[in-house]
Formats: sequence, C-alpha cells, structure tokens
Amino acid sequence: MTYARYQTLENADQLEAALREVGAERYHILHPFHRLLHTGRLTRGQVQAWALNRYYYQSRIPMKDAALMSRCADRELRREWLVRILDHDGFGEQEGGIARWLRLCQGLGLDPDYVRSEEGILPATRFAVDAYVRFVREQTLLEAVASSLTELFAPKIHEERIPGLLQNYDFVSEEMVAYFRRRLDQAPRDAGFALAYVREHADTAEKRFAVVKALIFKCDVLWAQLDALHHAYVLGGGIPKGAFVPADLPAQEAA
Amino acid sequence: MTYARYQTLENADQLEAALREVGAERYHILHPFHRLLHTGRLTRGQVQAWALNRYYYQSRIPMKDAALMSRCADRELRREWLVRILDHDGFGEQEGGIARWLRLCQGLGLDPDYVRSEEGILPATRFAVDAYVRFVREQTLLEAVASSLTELFAPKIHEERIPGLLQNYDFVSEEMVAYFRRRLDQAPRDAGFALAYVREHADTAEKRFAVVKALIFKCDVLWAQLDALHHAYVLGGGIPKGAFVPADLPAQEAA
Repeated sequence: MTYARYQTLENADQLEAALREVGAERYHILHPFHRLLHTGRLTRGQVQAWALNRYYYQSRIPMKDAALMSRCADRELRREWLVRILDHDGFGEQEGGIARWLRLCQGLGLDPDYVRSEEGILPATRFAVDAYVRFVREQTLLEAVASSLTELFAPKIHEERIPGLLQNYDFVSEEMVAYFRRRLDQAPRDAGFALAYVREHADTAEKRFAVVKALIFKCDVLWAQLDALHHAYVLGGGIPKGAFVPADLPAQEAA
Repeated sequence: MTYARYQTLENADQLEAALREVGAERYHILHPFHRLLHTGRLTRGQVQAWALNRYYYQSRIPMKDAALMSRCADRELRREWLVRILDHDGFGEQEGGIARWLRLCQGLGLDPDYVRSEEGILPATRFAVDAYVRFVREQTLLEAVASSLTELFAPKIHEERIPGLLQNYDFVSEEMVAYFRRRLDQAPRDAGFALAYVREHADTAEKRFAVVKALIFKCDVLWAQLDALHHAYVLGGGIPKGAFVPADLPAQEAA
C-alpha cells in the first residue's frame, strides 16, 4: 500500500510532518506547467487557457466552503470558515477574489461573459473541481477541513508567481496580479486555522490517516487540472471539442 | 453558444440525427490514444496502463446502472435495464464483463489484486468516471438513459479493436479479447433500447436538447480518460505520484 507510512501516525506533530511531506512531494508548484508559466515560457493564449480554466476552480470555492458550513453544527467553526466566503465572493464594498480573478482574465484579453459561461473549460477541469466540491460535501467534516490544507503551501507559489508573471509577460500588469497579492495574507491565516483544527480533532491514527489522504486527494485535484492544460495546450495532445482555442495556437494543433 | 443548433430539434428523427452527429464528432474512437492502441504502436506497459485505468470505468458501470434503477418507478424499464447489470457483474454461472476485463488485465501481466485495489489509476480517471456515476444519480432519468447512448458507436470501436489488438501485439491472446467479442452483441441491443426510449420520451425541444447534452457529457467522460492516459504514458507529461509505472517505461519519464 502506497501510503502505509501514514497509517500509524502517533500524534499531532507526526501528522503535521506527514502533511508537510505530502505538500513537498505533490503540491502543484512542482508541476511542469507551473514551471513554464512562472518562467515566461508560455504564449498569451496558453496563459489565457490557464486563467480561464482556473476561473472555474475559483468559482466553486465558495460553494465548497458553503458545503462545509452546511454540515457544521459548531458555530465557532462556521464563523471562522465564513471568512473564506467573504474573501472569495466579497461582501458590501469588498469585491472579493473571484472578481479579481475575472479582472485577471479580462486583462489577458478574455471576454468576462465567456469566462463566466464556463463554456470553454476543459471537461477534465470540471471533473476535477466538481470532485473537490463533492468531497467536501460528502466526506467527514474533518476530511473536508483537511482538504483545504494545500493553502499551507500556497504562499510559496504566489511569491514565485507574482514576479514570474510581471517580469516575463509584457501583457501582465500589476493590477492583474491583485488576486495573488491578497492571497499572500489570506492563505496563511486560513491554513493556520485548518492546521490547528486537524491537529486537535484528528485524535486517532485512523483519523490522522484520513487527514493525510484528504490532502493527497486535494493535491491530485490541483495536479489533474494542470495535467489537462499541459496536455491540451502545451504538449499538443489536442484540444477537446468545444474547449477554448487560443488565437495564437497554430491551426494544426486544434483537435 | 456552441450547441445552439441542438436547441431547436423538432422531432425524434432530428434528435437521432443530432445524436449520431455528436458521435461522429466526439466518440473516443477518434482519440489519438485509440489510434495508437489499435495500430500496434503502444508498448506492453502502455497497454497495461490503459487496461488498468479502464478497469475502474468497468467497475463503476453496474453502480451507475443501479443508480439509474434506484430512481426508476417504471418496472418495465428496470427489467430492461437489469440486463446491463447482469452483463457486467454476471450472475450464477455467468462470469460477466468485469471478470472478463480482469482476465484481460491478468493476461497483460497485471496482478488482479493490484487492479482491483484501484491504487494505480490516474486521479483523472477517477474524477471522470465518478462524474459519470453522479450524473446518472442526479440528472433526470431521461438524461441518465441518454448518457448510455455512446453504446450506439461501440460496435465500430470493438470491430476495430479486436483484430487491432490480436494482430499487432504478440502478448494479446484470443481469450483476452473475450470482453470485446461479447460487447459486439450486447451493446447494440442496449443502445437500441435506449435510443427508442429517448426518441419516445424526449417530447419537447428542451428535453431533446438535454438528451444531446447528456451524450456530449458522456463523450467528454470517455475522452478525458484517454487524454489522461495519453498525457501520462505517451506524450511524457509525467505520471502523477502514486499512479502505475510500467516496467518498460524509460526511468526519466516518471514524474
């Protein structure tokens, strides 16, 4: 069994070490598509494809968080978790992360109505993201919280991405990276809470194993989205029918 | 809107023509991975990866069919649909299609326990297949029936695959293609029933559009599975951590 070493974690410190090991091995900062994105080796059309597909992920995050809250009888946990929805959807005068992501898409030259229509996304994006929402809806509350722990590793990717995008692409402006700048503060706060939560509530080896598997699952969700982008838009595996076709793509590469 | 032309189908004949058009454009017989598979251009390890991942799809088909039956108050439809579960799971002395698929895997040199463990499959396989089971569980009964209509196009792929495998790979024996030979008879019977069902029950333009979209969804489910295989095992996009690594794969291609 691949994950046998995670079945016998004895305490919260061992759990945390295991979670950090999973991140070091599986977080999508390691994915070749991100290496290309952050070092300026993608075309504008490829960056558009990334932003368009990632929008679908962003758009489902508050649904995921609401699903978690809908199952949670603990008011304190709900009050804490609500911050995530406020961050993404915004409230009152706050525009929120999804609106910032849409501005990134628009800055890249995508029509916001097209982005919001979800028409051009890869089916694999939809399958992976929907799997995440359903995981949070259907697994235990502990596993649902644990699946958010990829945010432990998010600041590093944003620190790499912000200068990577700004310095390498003349079509990326400061305003377009606003989403990532905000996440630099938001993600550590959220991740810190979730980490403390699983450290406290995963009080048996079985639960600690479930927490680790939830994080592996979530890493798979993120990785699969990049695999699909890499395949369709970089390696020439063919763009599935109905999915976005960048204007700068050589015609023969469209399936 | 990409599918605008399917929104105004006026009758059952136009519906059937639309369904056949979708199949001609999107059925996975057109996928480059199948072209490689059927013309002998894959290694044994790549064929193993295909059979292993496809096993997960096979294993979920009776669950999908049971989900459909669980929502169906029409005894006649349940009696008809039960044939599919009998075909796949077997009953009494009939071993069924899943057992035949396992023998294919075993003939290819895979340990059946490993195959059944589902450990080595690509996360993208799981996301796509699970999306199919949930679609059948959650959409209307009409859409659930319609999503089975890829079987209209299955005989052609099996007619190509049986000689393609037998003639091109010395590690494939007659016994190993038993699954496909049986499907040559089973699929047309099932597809004929489902086609007659949607022709009769999709009695508004809106329902006919929903039927077409269900078939497009299903084609996406099949296509995404091959994209993931093609990416990980053919184009060198990297094998996700934990997924099957063929023995004949050059070491540097593993992620």
